[in-house]
Amino acid sequence: MRLRNIKGVDSIIEKSKYIVKSPEKNKGKWKEVFSNENEIHIEIGMGKGNFIINMAKNNPNINFIGIEMYDSVIVRAVQKLENEDLLNLKLVKMDARLIEDVFDKEVDLIYLNFSDPWPKNRNAKRRLTHKNFLDKYENIFKGKKIIFQKTDNIHLFEFSIESLSEYGYKLKNISLDLHNSDFSNNIMTEYEEKFKNIGVRINRLEAYKD
Amino acid sequence: MRLRNIKGVDSIIEKSKYIVKSPEKNKGKWKEVFSNENEIHIEIGMGKGNFIINMAKNNPNINFIGIEMYDSVIVRAVQKLENEDLLNLKLVKMDARLIEDVFDKEVDLIYLNFSDPWPKNRNAKRRLTHKNFLDKYENIFKGKKIIFQKTDNIHLFEFSIESLSEYGYKLKNISLDLHNSDFSNNIMTEYEEKFKNIGVRINRLEAYKD
Repeated sequence: MRLRNIKGVDSIIEKSKYIVKSPEKNKGKWKEVFSNENEIHIEIGMGKGNFIINMAKNNPNINFIGIEMYDSVIVRAVQKLENEDLLNLKLVKMDARLIEDVFDKEVDLIYLNFSDPWPKNRNAKRRLTHKNFLDKYENIFKGKKIIFQKTDNIHLFEFSIESLSEYGYKLKNISLDLHNSDFSNNIMTEYEEKFKNIGVRINRLEAYKD
Repeated sequence: MRLRNIKGVDSIIEKSKYIVKSPEKNKGKWKEVFSNENEIHIEIGMGKGNFIINMAKNNPNINFIGIEMYDSVIVRAVQKLENEDLLNLKLVKMDARLIEDVFDKEVDLIYLNFSDPWPKNRNAKRRLTHKNFLDKYENIFKGKKIIFQKTDNIHLFEFSIESLSEYGYKLKNISLDLHNSDFSNNIMTEYEEKFKNIGVRINRLEAYKD
């Protein structure tokens, strides 16, 4: 069933001005893609793009790059952008495990929103806050390392606090119930909106490392 | 109403072999009180004592000291101990703000169970994980600093994660829903039992600092 649509999806993605093909060619020189020296914030696993598109709209002086592995969701972000003209947003289709091939000391902030929790312990290393990923992030951050995470999954959140803390990140602005907290200007993802409506608590953290 | 009982309470507390009077006299030499070199674990705010009494029963090779400020609750712990003969447990009536007057580089682990959350920001410094208290704990710990905390209050838990992390503690074995986790051998406090029965989620953390 999914195969039937792939040709259309490919073509929609292919034609979008937001999609960066061969992103590894920009490694170390993403500021040239945006033609400015503004901060670069990336979202790993942007899904259907609601979060990063709205972040880009609200923060024109920050450059945003949304990363997503699956055609079937990245196409939804592309469709949302059809009538938009955002100069500070690019989308990259790639597997996050290869992130060091695409960035080199040029990222200011990483967003991890509702990442796959990989609940089984044997898959722990696939979680985006596992030490293996934190090692990779060390090479893509420009200076101070900053990660903002949101998730409804308490086990992923527990794991993230432990892993980030162990790695030397300091945790700030923790929220165990984001939608009943005093955190303002929250931009929701598609998942988050659904979860909020059924009363699921959303967890959020900020992690900082020099 | 409370005054009416004070005389009886005083006498019950006074007569208990578990209560250490003038605890500051033992500063730096608590091992002499227990006549051994075993680890010393303290609970600050032991309430009615369920947790520390059961911990003492289950761990005869660890010395436990329960600290509580209020006569009206410490008396409940004393009453529970009436027919017990635990050589590894002592109770101290004191205000935690004076903890440095009572211990000197001799505590191995601090338990903070269901501490007062002091919800107003202007009272933040009264929370037992505030920097002011962490400063005091530095002087009472023997070597490695270890704090185990449980609370149903999410704001206190958020605050604790941030404050401990900022202070240099590493966070381990986080649980955002203790009674639906794989944490075993949990000893419950009186509060915890009540909260568990009405389905309130219990948070738990372990914090370690060299």
